[in-house]
Amino acid sequence: MTAPAAAWPATRLARALGIALPILQAPMAMAATPALAAAVSNAGALGALGSAMLPLPALAAEVAAVRAATSGGINLNFFCHPAPVAGAAAEAAAAAALAPHHVALGLPPPAPVLAPPVPGFDAGRLDWLLAHPPRVVSFHFGLPPGDAVARLKAAGSAVIATATTVAEARAVEAAGCDAVIAQGWEAGGHRGAFRLEPADRGVGLLALVPQVVDAVAIPVIAAGGIGDGRGIAAALMLGAEGVQLGTAFLSCPEAATAPAHRAVLAAATDCDTHLTAAYSGRPARARITAFGSAFQSAPVAGYPLPRELTRPLVAAAAARGIDDYAFHLYGQAAPLCRPLPAAALVARLAAETAAALSRS
Amino acid sequence: MTAPAAAWPATRLARALGIALPILQAPMAMAATPALAAAVSNAGALGALGSAMLPLPALAAEVAAVRAATSGGINLNFFCHPAPVAGAAAEAAAAAALAPHHVALGLPPPAPVLAPPVPGFDAGRLDWLLAHPPRVVSFHFGLPPGDAVARLKAAGSAVIATATTVAEARAVEAAGCDAVIAQGWEAGGHRGAFRLEPADRGVGLLALVPQVVDAVAIPVIAAGGIGDGRGIAAALMLGAEGVQLGTAFLSCPEAATAPAHRAVLAAATDCDTHLTAAYSGRPARARITAFGSAFQSAPVAGYPLPRELTRPLVAAAAARGIDDYAFHLYGQAAPLCRPLPAAALVARLAAETAAALSRS
Repeated sequence: MTAPAAAWPATRLARALGIALPILQAPMAMAATPALAAAVSNAGALGALGSAMLPLPALAAEVAAVRAATSGGINLNFFCHPAPVAGAAAEAAAAAALAPHHVALGLPPPAPVLAPPVPGFDAGRLDWLLAHPPRVVSFHFGLPPGDAVARLKAAGSAVIATATTVAEARAVEAAGCDAVIAQGWEAGGHRGAFRLEPADRGVGLLALVPQVVDAVAIPVIAAGGIGDGRGIAAALMLGAEGVQLGTAFLSCPEAATAPAHRAVLAAATDCDTHLTAAYSGRPARARITAFGSAFQSAPVAGYPLPRELTRPLVAAAAARGIDDYAFHLYGQAAPLCRPLPAAALVARLAAETAAALSRS
Repeated sequence: MTAPAAAWPATRLARALGIALPILQAPMAMAATPALAAAVSNAGALGALGSAMLPLPALAAEVAAVRAATSGGINLNFFCHPAPVAGAAAEAAAAAALAPHHVALGLPPPAPVLAPPVPGFDAGRLDWLLAHPPRVVSFHFGLPPGDAVARLKAAGSAVIATATTVAEARAVEAAGCDAVIAQGWEAGGHRGAFRLEPADRGVGLLALVPQVVDAVAIPVIAAGGIGDGRGIAAALMLGAEGVQLGTAFLSCPEAATAPAHRAVLAAATDCDTHLTAAYSGRPARARITAFGSAFQSAPVAGYPLPRELTRPLVAAAAARGIDDYAFHLYGQAAPLCRPLPAAALVARLAAETAAALSRS
């Protein structure tokens, strides 16, 4: 990848993360695979695993699979969020909210879910990371407590975290992170917002990036709504030193994107997504559905309990070809997706970016 | 302005509009003035008047004032929207909605408003424009009926219109317009959305522009969230051939921006605005207020009746220094505002853009 990289501005970020191209594959939980991450890293960018929803043994196995397939770096992503309030009252409320939908699909009443299947970022994950430091550790939904950032850096990992506002970016810098991901309103998947007072107002990437660049001294990674080299070049003009793309990689054959999801991506428009908390308990940009609209801002329970609570609905509807309950995550630039192998996509993105920059 | 223009890509748009710099000052109704428009046009960009809310004699006087101050072009902007349903039932509903707020401020009950103070774009305005063709006529909230676009072009004006989605951009092109303004979610003031089924999903500018560029053959003007030369350079990378900035000009001394509005702009953040239909009947990005939140998506009456209906509330609150009812329009890039004279601001924008482009 030396040829296209030569046409790019050399960024502090690329040096800090040890990558030829300052392009990060977003660590999409459920969609990123070891094959995708390794292909991206082998192409000179930075591959990632969505580690948050993997039990530790499964995470270790996935990391081993990446390391067997690339000598490049890897970015492991974790979620920082309060534990949900489980228990009788929460269960009753969630069951009442979901009951009509179960009736509509002829399913038995919602079954209780008393605890999330996988905890948020915890001491066990931290200890494992300190013993097996990846090139990059990234955090979503906030920052880890205590001295986790300092310890991860001391162990040799670069640490980055997502912000959706200038105030959140300042918090990421104050926590000692090496870079901040500025996530725009356009982004597919879960909003990384963590300072929720006042409520999330959805700052668009083009307005967000220069304000974050002005507010912090650490490198800024632009994320959300970037689908091709035009968007990457635009992000660099805004002052970002790198970019993170998720949706663009969902159509790669290496991704664990379900066939129904791939079909939706191929037919996506600029305006067929919304933010909904229905499926997970936190706002995520996904294809508009009736179920997603019903619980757009009022989740059926605290994150991540709805993932388990809604599983029977999602599965039953999928089995019958009913789209109203599908949870297809993607961003506003989905129509720019190209179904290319990851290495070819990274090369295409690099060439498009260099071409856009050289036209100016 | 030849020096900075030389560093810019020559765009079809700049040639079509006869401007040295492809920068359009947004035609902000109530805030744009003849002095602002003339200063912008004299600086090599395109000044504009927000003509929609001016009775025809006042519009003619403002245009004469611009023409006395510049030999450059002018962009006159008009609103295309259905006439609101006025009458007893609508009045009663609006009065019921506003009554508690009148009580809270100790005002008499809401007075009826039976018709908008100024009609939308109509035959009288069209005839006047055909007799006095400006360099550019622009439309917001949709497109004029019949053969108005063709007649305006035949009279010598370039015609442009706002789109907030790819589908709307295709409609603008199909109507025969010379260029389309792609307005992102970040933009201050009124959303230009006019295909409201499905509901407005708020496409961010960085995702919107390349998709519009791919969908239409006419030049694309990027608008929303652009506050300085970094944003302009980013828009050009996305494939736009020009940009439109509104909020950036609100802090110019030539703008008719009220002192309270200027003070709010000077303290603005990236995330202190929302879309609200409370004040006008159509969604507009404005500073978050309690009143704006109360009627965020459910207007008190059809556009533009609430402008008259809410005038007593807004005036009484302003007189007493109560911010909860203020209608301060601005976009998500307001913190990038510089309180410079318009000519100096245009020169600064041009220099910043050229610098950003030359860094690549």
